[in-house]
Amino acid sequence: MSEVYGRVALIGLGLIASSMFWAMKRAGLAGEVTGYARSAETRETARRIGLCDRICDSAIEAVKDADLVVLCVPVGAMGPVAAEIAPHLKAGATISDVGSVKRHVIDAVAPHLPEGLHFVPAHPLAGTEHSGPESGFAELYDNRWCILVPVEGTDPAATAKLRALWEGMGANVDEMDADHHDLVLAVTSHAPHLIAYTMVGVADDLRRVTDSEVIKYSAAGFRDFTRIAASDPTMWRDVFLTNKEATLEILGRFTEELFALQRAIRTGDGEHLHDYFTRTRAIRRGIIEAGQDTAEPNFGREST
Amino acid sequence: MSEVYGRVALIGLGLIASSMFWAMKRAGLAGEVTGYARSAETRETARRIGLCDRICDSAIEAVKDADLVVLCVPVGAMGPVAAEIAPHLKAGATISDVGSVKRHVIDAVAPHLPEGLHFVPAHPLAGTEHSGPESGFAELYDNRWCILVPVEGTDPAATAKLRALWEGMGANVDEMDADHHDLVLAVTSHAPHLIAYTMVGVADDLRRVTDSEVIKYSAAGFRDFTRIAASDPTMWRDVFLTNKEATLEILGRFTEELFALQRAIRTGDGEHLHDYFTRTRAIRRGIIEAGQDTAEPNFGREST
Repeated sequence: MSEVYGRVALIGLGLIASSMFWAMKRAGLAGEVTGYARSAETRETARRIGLCDRICDSAIEAVKDADLVVLCVPVGAMGPVAAEIAPHLKAGATISDVGSVKRHVIDAVAPHLPEGLHFVPAHPLAGTEHSGPESGFAELYDNRWCILVPVEGTDPAATAKLRALWEGMGANVDEMDADHHDLVLAVTSHAPHLIAYTMVGVADDLRRVTDSEVIKYSAAGFRDFTRIAASDPTMWRDVFLTNKEATLEILGRFTEELFALQRAIRTGDGEHLHDYFTRTRAIRRGIIEAGQDTAEPNFGREST
Repeated sequence: MSEVYGRVALIGLGLIASSMFWAMKRAGLAGEVTGYARSAETRETARRIGLCDRICDSAIEAVKDADLVVLCVPVGAMGPVAAEIAPHLKAGATISDVGSVKRHVIDAVAPHLPEGLHFVPAHPLAGTEHSGPESGFAELYDNRWCILVPVEGTDPAATAKLRALWEGMGANVDEMDADHHDLVLAVTSHAPHLIAYTMVGVADDLRRVTDSEVIKYSAAGFRDFTRIAASDPTMWRDVFLTNKEATLEILGRFTEELFALQRAIRTGDGEHLHDYFTRTRAIRRGIIEAGQDTAEPNFGREST
């Protein structure tokens, strides 16, 4: 594959940014990649493991002459970072991000950007429960989706170029509007994460069942919740605070359905339960057919 | 390993029974294993794939002269099956089961059993989202827990023998009382399954987000719910109907916690959210340290 951008700056060096670097490197998509993280320790780790071609000690230094700047910081930090770097961006550069919420990021970042820049927000739907600069790997985006949310008036050529970058990193690319994105993600990601966090918290709280029992017997279903409840707390705090309305709407619907199932249990309505459980099986089949998970039992975990 | 029982009968031939057969065979734990399933199609499949040494056309025929009879049918079917086979059990035989709920199974099965039999209920905490006679494999129980719930007055020698069988199949064995088992499982398995079913149902219902969007973008968290929501509907209907009190208690606590988190989102209490999400990370670490899941990102899924 050939170079898409001459210079790319990654601001924030966690799982997403580090995987972007390795994926760009794998395919030769960028001439030079600079990186910056607020924490000196993270910058030190990045230098030690060879993450980015050059690690800078300030965001301003990192974005100098960059053709593409990608904000890879928690959603709540996007605005302040944009304000800091905006006066130092190269004319004609593209600025993007990888935040899990799009309306809030657009509202927080756009006002700071000078004329003549291309703002193309993005959200790669990929991740693991690990975080930090050492957690990245080149294959993270292979066959995963990246959603672009170009703001009104963006030059289609800038969007097409960012699309080429993500496709070069292995992703499938879709475009949608910010509000729809935030609703879709509330369903497929934000509400499931909050529910998983809640269930893990309940287990931890229960006095009559010890932590060691919860841990020993977790293979019966609970452990699938703990993986997503092990994700980065700062990132998720920001997601919930900035996609408040859609998340609360979905949680409201969830509670409604849960109450209906609880009532079916209480009244012994086995038919209602059986019908419900049969219907949900179909969605699972769709996900496997769409290549977004494996049909291997137990997610292909080693059983020993 | 050496033979533990001369003849073992498996009543019901789904994931659990078929995995037991392959695991017993792997270690030479049984002289002969007979099998019976209510459906002629299942018996046919079992014969075709060599599941069990001998497939019988009635439960009565299968249990004849068996030293161990294991009921591997949905929890709601345990009582009727026990009533049918009880008069035909060999004197001194052990009868066990693999149901996910223990108090109900004991109440449903024990009254049918004649004097001189050993009743040792069991529950192997292992499974996949697949079901049926072809889904079993010898390694399913390796390093997983099997909980024995011997009823009062059971001969310790009978319990020790069943323990040897499960250990021979690769499992770690614990003993606990039926009510505590049902509470522990409500936390680690039953409530998480109901919650996963609910979340998948909500996604399926939502008009403004299409099914294809839910499926395409499921890698963001949702797919982990769909796996457990793809489990056998009959089995799970019976679990909820027969472990009603403990499940409803845990769901009540879950709802309480969820409401507190929803309020934190609504009021913008980021500190509460961050603290909660930090606490739940510790449980995940415990599960990995206990060998009940892998630390591999994404459960070791292939990313392509």
